[in-house]
Amino acid sequence: MTYTAVELIESKRDGKQLPADGIEWLIGSYTDGSVPDYQMSAMAMAIVFNGLDAEELAAWTSAMIASGDTFDFSEIPLAKIDKHSTGGVGDKVSIPLAPLVAACGVVVPMMSGRALGHTGGTLDKLESIPGFVPRIDQTRFREILSEHHLVLAGQSDTIVPADQMLYALRDATGTVSSIPLISSSIMSKKLSEGLDGLVLDVKTGSGAFMDTIDEARELARTMVGIGINNDVETVALITSMEQPLGNEVGNANEIKESVDVLNGTGPSDVTELTLALGEVMLELARIDGGRERLQEAIDSGAALQKLKDVATAHGGDASVLDDTSRLERATHEEVIESPNDGYVTRCDALTIGLVATRLGAGRERKEAEVDHGVAITLKAKVGSRVPTGGPLAVVHYNDEAKWLGQKDKLASAWAIGPEEPAEIDLVIERVDRSQI
Amino acid sequence: MTYTAVELIESKRDGKQLPADGIEWLIGSYTDGSVPDYQMSAMAMAIVFNGLDAEELAAWTSAMIASGDTFDFSEIPLAKIDKHSTGGVGDKVSIPLAPLVAACGVVVPMMSGRALGHTGGTLDKLESIPGFVPRIDQTRFREILSEHHLVLAGQSDTIVPADQMLYALRDATGTVSSIPLISSSIMSKKLSEGLDGLVLDVKTGSGAFMDTIDEARELARTMVGIGINNDVETVALITSMEQPLGNEVGNANEIKESVDVLNGTGPSDVTELTLALGEVMLELARIDGGRERLQEAIDSGAALQKLKDVATAHGGDASVLDDTSRLERATHEEVIESPNDGYVTRCDALTIGLVATRLGAGRERKEAEVDHGVAITLKAKVGSRVPTGGPLAVVHYNDEAKWLGQKDKLASAWAIGPEEPAEIDLVIERVDRSQI
Repeated sequence: MTYTAVELIESKRDGKQLPADGIEWLIGSYTDGSVPDYQMSAMAMAIVFNGLDAEELAAWTSAMIASGDTFDFSEIPLAKIDKHSTGGVGDKVSIPLAPLVAACGVVVPMMSGRALGHTGGTLDKLESIPGFVPRIDQTRFREILSEHHLVLAGQSDTIVPADQMLYALRDATGTVSSIPLISSSIMSKKLSEGLDGLVLDVKTGSGAFMDTIDEARELARTMVGIGINNDVETVALITSMEQPLGNEVGNANEIKESVDVLNGTGPSDVTELTLALGEVMLELARIDGGRERLQEAIDSGAALQKLKDVATAHGGDASVLDDTSRLERATHEEVIESPNDGYVTRCDALTIGLVATRLGAGRERKEAEVDHGVAITLKAKVGSRVPTGGPLAVVHYNDEAKWLGQKDKLASAWAIGPEEPAEIDLVIERVDRSQI
Repeated sequence: MTYTAVELIESKRDGKQLPADGIEWLIGSYTDGSVPDYQMSAMAMAIVFNGLDAEELAAWTSAMIASGDTFDFSEIPLAKIDKHSTGGVGDKVSIPLAPLVAACGVVVPMMSGRALGHTGGTLDKLESIPGFVPRIDQTRFREILSEHHLVLAGQSDTIVPADQMLYALRDATGTVSSIPLISSSIMSKKLSEGLDGLVLDVKTGSGAFMDTIDEARELARTMVGIGINNDVETVALITSMEQPLGNEVGNANEIKESVDVLNGTGPSDVTELTLALGEVMLELARIDGGRERLQEAIDSGAALQKLKDVATAHGGDASVLDDTSRLERATHEEVIESPNDGYVTRCDALTIGLVATRLGAGRERKEAEVDHGVAITLKAKVGSRVPTGGPLAVVHYNDEAKWLGQKDKLASAWAIGPEEPAEIDLVIERVDRSQI
C-alpha cells in the first residue's frame, strides 16, 4: 500500500483506525523529512482528540523504535531491568534504587533524563557529584555495565530520533497532553534499551503530569500494554505526588538524601518507594528474596558501595558520597516559618517544584544551566504538627532577587489546619499484565 | 495582552473561547510568517474538533479581512450585491444571474473562482468565450463596474492573503472540513468586496461539499451570521445538488445553456434557480418588481445584452453568444444508453462531476489546464421516462483513452426503476437574519 499524509490525517480525524503499515510509513517519512512538521502536528492534534487504540499504539511505538539504534546486551547472561518515573518533585528514587537492585544481581542499563518544567532530572542530580559524566560512548557503556551491572547514563542521541523530533513539535503545538503520544514516547525509548523487564513509577497528584488517578491509571495501563506487546514484562506502580518525595528538593541535597537511603537513614517515604519499586525489579528479574534481600544489601553496605563504584566509573569523585557535607551548597539560606499552630494539611508538590526550578534547581528553558547547590529542605510535611513560627522549610539560594520574587509563592505551598489530616497513601496501586 | 501560539492552541484544544485580540494576533502573525505552518495546522485541527463560536468567528473573519486589501465602490450610488455558491455540478447560475440583476439596476462586482475537485468554476466557463480575460487590474475593474454595473472577474491576489495561505495549509493537513473555517474563508473574501448585500447558494446532496441538509443549514446559518455581524445583509438559499443543474456539464456547453436562460429557453431548473436567487438580490438591493422585473429583463433582451457588453469589456468575442454553435466543442461524442426501460430515479451529481473533471472539464490538480470543449450533455434526469437503449447522456470528449477509463463509471450515475420518483425540491429553504 502507498499512503499520503493527508489521507492518514483524515482517517484519524474521522475516528478510523490507522493501518499498521500506514503508521510505519508516516513515522519513517517524518523522520527522513519527507512528511513536513505541519502535517505531523495536525496528526498529533487529531490523536489528542481521537487517540490510538492498542493495535495502532503497537505499530506507532514499533515505528518510533525503528527510527534509530537499539541496544542488545544479551552477552550479559542476567536479567536487564530498568525503571522509569513519569516525573515528580524530590523524586530521587532512581539514585538509591538502581545500585540497590544491581547489588542484588539485577543488570540495570539505566538511561535518564534532565530536569524540565517543575520536575528535577536524575542526570542533573548525578552531576552534583564532582566529575560525574553521564554521557558515555557505547563501548564504555558496555564496559561499565559488564563490570558493575549498572550504568547511570544519559539518553543516547541515536535512539528514537523520531521521538526527539516529535517531542519538540508537540511541545510547540499544544499536543503534549495525549496519553497515547506520551506512552509511545516513553516506551519507545525504554524498549530500545534491550530490556527483559521494566518497572514504571506513574505519579498522580499536584506535582505529577497526570492530575487525577483515572488519568494515571490510563497512562499506566497504556504503557504496560505497550511493554507486554513488545515482549518486555512491564509493571507500573501508581504513586502519590501530592507532596514532594523525601525532605530534599534540589540536586546536591537529593544526592545526600539518596546516600541516606542507602545508609538506612533516609526519610520513610523515599525509602518505602525505593523498596517497593526494588521488589518489583527483583520479581521481574526472577531473583528471590524480595524486600529482605534489598534490606540486606543496604545493611551490608553493598548497595552504597555499588553507587560509589559506578560513580567512579562515570568519572565522579565518589568520596563525596562518604562525606556528603562536601557536596555543593548555596551561599544563602532562609527559614520559612509557619504562620500559625496546627497540622500541615497540604505541602504542595507543584508549588515547591516551581519555586525550586525558578531558584535554579531546574530548567525553565531547555538550554538553561542548573545550579546544583540550590535546594528547598522540607521541615514539615502533610501530618506534621507545627507551632506558630516553627520551620516549614529551609531555602538554600544563591540569587537574592530571584528568592524575594518567590518567597510568598513558596509560603503558599503549605496549609495549616486544626485537624490531623488522613495519611497520604504513597503506593496507590499496581498495574500489570493481569489488568491489560 | 501578549499571546503565544501554544497557549492559544491549548485553549482551543481544551474547548475554551479564544480572545478576539488573540485571534487577531494569531492571524496577523501567521500572515507575516512569525507563526509557522506547524502551529497553524495544529490550531486548524483543534478547530475541526472544537469549532469557533459566533464571537470567535467574527474576530477570525475580521482578522482574515484585515490581512489584505479591501474594496470600496461607494462612488457608485447604487446597491452592490454579490452571489456566492458553495459549488456544484453544472452550476452555471452566476453567468445568467449576474447580468440579469445588473440589467435590473443592481451593481454586481462579482469575483469568482476556478474549477476544483468535482465542481466547475465560473472563470473557466467564461474563458470559453474567445478572448475573455477575467484577470483585470483595479482601475479597469472600476471602469467596467461604473459603465456596466457588472464585472465578472477573478479573485484578486491582494485580498485576504491569510486565506490563500490557510486554504493551502488546510488542504494539506486534513482540516478543510470545518464549518467555521469554510465559512470564514468564503465570507472574508466576499466581505472584502465592499458589498451592501450578499446572496449565498448553499448546496446539499451528492454533488455538494455538504452531504446532509443539517450540515448545509449549519453552514448557511454560520455564513449569514458572519455577514450580518459585518453589516452586510446576507441571505442564503439551501438548494439541491443531488443531480447536476441543467442539462450541460462542461465549460463551453454551460455558456450555451446560460445564453439559453437569458433567451428564455433554458432548462427549467437553471431558470428557476436563477430567478429565485435574482429575486433575493433585488430584495437586498431594495429594487421593486421581483420576478416580473427579472422576466422583463429576459424578455426585452436587456439581460443578454448586458452579458454581451460585459464579455466585450473583458476582451471577449461576444458574437459567440449570438451564435453558440461557434463555441468550442470536443472532437468525439458517444451516447450513453439506458440499460432498461423505466423512470430515472437517480442521476448522481458527484459521479457526473468526477467523470467530467477527469475528461478535462475540471481540474484534478490546481495547475492543470481545462479543456473547454469537453462536456456531458444530460438527456435524462430524475423523473424522466426512458426506453431500453434510449439516451441518458451524450459525452463530448477529446481523449479516447481517458474516456474508455470513465465509461462504466459514468453509466453508474443513473438508476432506472419502475416507479416514478418524487420530484426533487430545488430550493429547499431560505436562511436569513430571522434564523440567526
